[in-house]
Amino acid sequence: METRVILGIDIGGTKCAVALGRPDGELLQRTSVQTQADQHGPEQVLYRLAEMARQIIAEHGFMRPEIRGVGISCGGPLDTTTGTMHAPPNLPGWEAVPVRAFFEDALEMPVFVENDANATALAEWRYGAGRGFKNVVFITMGTGIGGGIILDGKLYRGTNDLAGELGHQTVLINGPRCGCGKRGCLEALASGPAIARLAQDSLQYGRHKRVLALADGKPAKITAEHVVRAAREGDDFAIGILNEAGSYMGLGIANVIQILNPEVVILGTIAVHAGDLILDPIRRAVEEYAWKRSSDACRIVAAGLGDRAQDLAAIAIVE
Amino acid sequence: METRVILGIDIGGTKCAVALGRPDGELLQRTSVQTQADQHGPEQVLYRLAEMARQIIAEHGFMRPEIRGVGISCGGPLDTTTGTMHAPPNLPGWEAVPVRAFFEDALEMPVFVENDANATALAEWRYGAGRGFKNVVFITMGTGIGGGIILDGKLYRGTNDLAGELGHQTVLINGPRCGCGKRGCLEALASGPAIARLAQDSLQYGRHKRVLALADGKPAKITAEHVVRAAREGDDFAIGILNEAGSYMGLGIANVIQILNPEVVILGTIAVHAGDLILDPIRRAVEEYAWKRSSDACRIVAAGLGDRAQDLAAIAIVE
Repeated sequence: METRVILGIDIGGTKCAVALGRPDGELLQRTSVQTQADQHGPEQVLYRLAEMARQIIAEHGFMRPEIRGVGISCGGPLDTTTGTMHAPPNLPGWEAVPVRAFFEDALEMPVFVENDANATALAEWRYGAGRGFKNVVFITMGTGIGGGIILDGKLYRGTNDLAGELGHQTVLINGPRCGCGKRGCLEALASGPAIARLAQDSLQYGRHKRVLALADGKPAKITAEHVVRAAREGDDFAIGILNEAGSYMGLGIANVIQILNPEVVILGTIAVHAGDLILDPIRRAVEEYAWKRSSDACRIVAAGLGDRAQDLAAIAIVE
Repeated sequence: METRVILGIDIGGTKCAVALGRPDGELLQRTSVQTQADQHGPEQVLYRLAEMARQIIAEHGFMRPEIRGVGISCGGPLDTTTGTMHAPPNLPGWEAVPVRAFFEDALEMPVFVENDANATALAEWRYGAGRGFKNVVFITMGTGIGGGIILDGKLYRGTNDLAGELGHQTVLINGPRCGCGKRGCLEALASGPAIARLAQDSLQYGRHKRVLALADGKPAKITAEHVVRAAREGDDFAIGILNEAGSYMGLGIANVIQILNPEVVILGTIAVHAGDLILDPIRRAVEEYAWKRSSDACRIVAAGLGDRAQDLAAIAIVE
């Protein structure tokens, strides 16, 4: 039996967390703090996280040899060969931060760094909805659409850590402008902001009463969460919007299935909250746009780790 | 030094070939025959190939231990776990043909079976334009558009041997009907038949004189080769058609780049014949539809093996 533990550190734009867990996914403890990147520089943030990590280890009375290593999950772009973060959009001012070197020095143990989509893919594969499969595509479906890919039982990172950017495949030529600057990206048609925009754009048709009420009557305040909540209450307009976003999402997933022929596609956040209200239109579109022999071999499911996803993501990085 | 040799057998719809080569890609001999699948059943075809293989071995005086194994390259669908061909479109009537078992019995040596796109990907990676790279996408661009994918220095086959079917990603919603039954597949917009159709469809505009002349004045006879030849001669209409097909091809390749972040994309047949006339519009579209950091990391080139591709494909299967 493996008795050792793993430290997981999650560095996010608004929140950071340090967790202690076992290789089988059992969480022993987790502590989180606000990142406050506007008040503290990268060094201060990392220093505080190292401090928290040391404290957790001390509290549990673990000795260094009992700790397998530290997994760091953070936003990309990331260079995994050097363990350096390069100006992630969620942490302005973090130019070329040598995360791995810092924690290797500070904690004196092996450190592994991975972008959050890859880390969550590893967690879903080891502990969640991807357990037991060899070819797994995990897709974040929140503010952005990103992905982490496990092929033949191994994380695939790509040539310069940019594999899995499937939210920026083009699904609609001359489609809406995406945050990345391109047009017609899947992310511009099926992410949270895209769902909110679909609802906002329909204001002129006056067919959105429930969604608008949930947003306190303020169109600009409509979010994907309002749309999902209204849809869960049975609101036809909101259901229609999830159908539309799901149809694009399904097309994008079908393309991934044609290229990668995975056993399972696991969808995060919005799919977890909306369930079949978004999974059903996604599955219908996959049937339309992918080959039957490929889609029959692939199940499409919501992520399985819920609240524990971020902590387990950092822990899953350490082999 | 590796002194052993490899047998390669290529099973095609019109032609079959047996080749003898070295692990470094040197071809010692090759013999080909018409398949005549309409006159002979699968067993007869395979029996004749085994006979040819034995003869080549005997002529060269190799003993069994000097032969590493036999690589069989054939059309999919294929089950590589059992080595069985399943009704390939180019060989009607070949239902569940146990190719590997047959040659293991007939030749008494290790047999490896792979679909032709995967086999050619391996050959381009080991001996051709993909040499020295770790992440390689090979794309056939002829009658169909298919692909073979090498990731982290290893062929990736997918869950049930259907990875790399990137010609059947959807690039145009409600686009032209594809041979596979779906609509708007990349193959329906950029393959040889798609290029020919683009030229034929433009007949009504009377802007195709050179292409039509090459097809003996018969619109229905226009092929992609006529279009490529006219374009090489400087014909604007033909160049325009290659621009259009190349633009779709570039979009499809950009999607693959976003998902797989490869170091090199290698394009077969049409790209080999048309060269920059199709590669330039492809590269322009990739720049438009893929992220700069991903496309900068990826070169897009024509296949490098020319006439030797098919023989080397079968040989490259054997590790």
